[in-house]
Amino acid sequence: MSKPEDRPDHVTAAILVIGDEILSGRTKDRNVGHIADVLTAVGIDLREVRIVADVTEDIVAAVDALRRRYTYLFTTGGIGPTHDDITADAIAAAFGVPIDVDERALALMRPHYERRGLPLTPSRLRMARLPKGSELIENSISAAPGFRLENVVVLAGVPSVMQVMLDAVLPSLKTGRRMLSQAIDVNVPEGDIADLFAAHQSAYPDVSMGSYPSFSATGLRCQLVLRSTEPARLEEASASLRETLAGLGYLAAP
Amino acid sequence: MSKPEDRPDHVTAAILVIGDEILSGRTKDRNVGHIADVLTAVGIDLREVRIVADVTEDIVAAVDALRRRYTYLFTTGGIGPTHDDITADAIAAAFGVPIDVDERALALMRPHYERRGLPLTPSRLRMARLPKGSELIENSISAAPGFRLENVVVLAGVPSVMQVMLDAVLPSLKTGRRMLSQAIDVNVPEGDIADLFAAHQSAYPDVSMGSYPSFSATGLRCQLVLRSTEPARLEEASASLRETLAGLGYLAAP
Repeated sequence: MSKPEDRPDHVTAAILVIGDEILSGRTKDRNVGHIADVLTAVGIDLREVRIVADVTEDIVAAVDALRRRYTYLFTTGGIGPTHDDITADAIAAAFGVPIDVDERALALMRPHYERRGLPLTPSRLRMARLPKGSELIENSISAAPGFRLENVVVLAGVPSVMQVMLDAVLPSLKTGRRMLSQAIDVNVPEGDIADLFAAHQSAYPDVSMGSYPSFSATGLRCQLVLRSTEPARLEEASASLRETLAGLGYLAAP
Repeated sequence: MSKPEDRPDHVTAAILVIGDEILSGRTKDRNVGHIADVLTAVGIDLREVRIVADVTEDIVAAVDALRRRYTYLFTTGGIGPTHDDITADAIAAAFGVPIDVDERALALMRPHYERRGLPLTPSRLRMARLPKGSELIENSISAAPGFRLENVVVLAGVPSVMQVMLDAVLPSLKTGRRMLSQAIDVNVPEGDIADLFAAHQSAYPDVSMGSYPSFSATGLRCQLVLRSTEPARLEEASASLRETLAGLGYLAAP
């Protein structure tokens, strides 16, 4: 049984969160959890996340490392109109391509701003600057688009805007075999089941297994999560583990 | 005026979050935001965060890169009793030191487990295994300690346990000049103030300035955040920006 990450059709991803405000604690990131959920649902295996400051060299270094290692790299943040929004320039630098105002982006933004009586100031025009070769990603909330350059998908940092951009770009991405999971709630602390759980993992090396402790009113408990892209194999591993735990009286009441 | 990161007494940090459950979306990370707040409050400059899976090579590579680049590296997750808890072994591998059951850790754990009538199974003993040369970090909740090896601080993944460990280790760390901040709420979208804000940043290159958009009932607004370790300089930059914005009628009602 091969591990999912060894399959030739395995699709992987990383996220790069860009923003001083996350590192200072001012803003609590909510994008990683959302993107993780969405990617898992479509069979894209999120392997790594990085958060870096609004510093060009740091962004370029991370983009360079991550885009070579994974099928896709998603970035969030730093595509607004102010001087600290440097993501598009950093992406252009990472790819070694020029960046300039894109007429397609302008065409999307102009009617949105006209309707609201807002002038297209030089700083707003910054949001229409895209690295050469980019495809636009629609922003149904505030018009200024995200973009995709090769395998790098550049999204906004504001969660609502990020989410509509992600929905817009998703159908154009290669997706993989969906990772399925089963969770088993156990009524004893994980130290009590760790040995049998490790033996079970050894018996099913192609099914990924993790244990997550929790504190309940009745004391320490844990949840065992089994994951696989193969429904039959996942069912077999889960059923046999459930049977073992039931025999020991360790299954939590449903 | 020098930038804070150029000072010799500047203290930096990175966080490495370890866990498949964060990357799959099953668990939403709450530790990064908390650690960011705590570090900012004591003048440690968080520069980078990475999240990696429960894969030894990935953990070792990240530990190796981050511990050399920053004053401190904080890790969270992967120090429980089950087979997917591989952080301590990965840290030992990254440092090239042996790992074994530590008598000091055992001495902390034994009374805790005895009081609860829980046997110290081989898997629970895994939590007493520490890389050679580690200092223990007290865990006032569930006894199994965190540890520190040189500049790497290894914390639990369960938020409540991580927090008591962080509180326990903090007094032993070198701290820096506290980063102070002032926030200015503006009643227009950031596109309207981006040009004057960029000019203000150029006038005060030693004060870090960011703009964060928000949607309110009355439309688009934004918050400008100025940050510096120098109280007088921060006050000067903030007062002069407030004056400019007030003159334009752009200050939001308090």
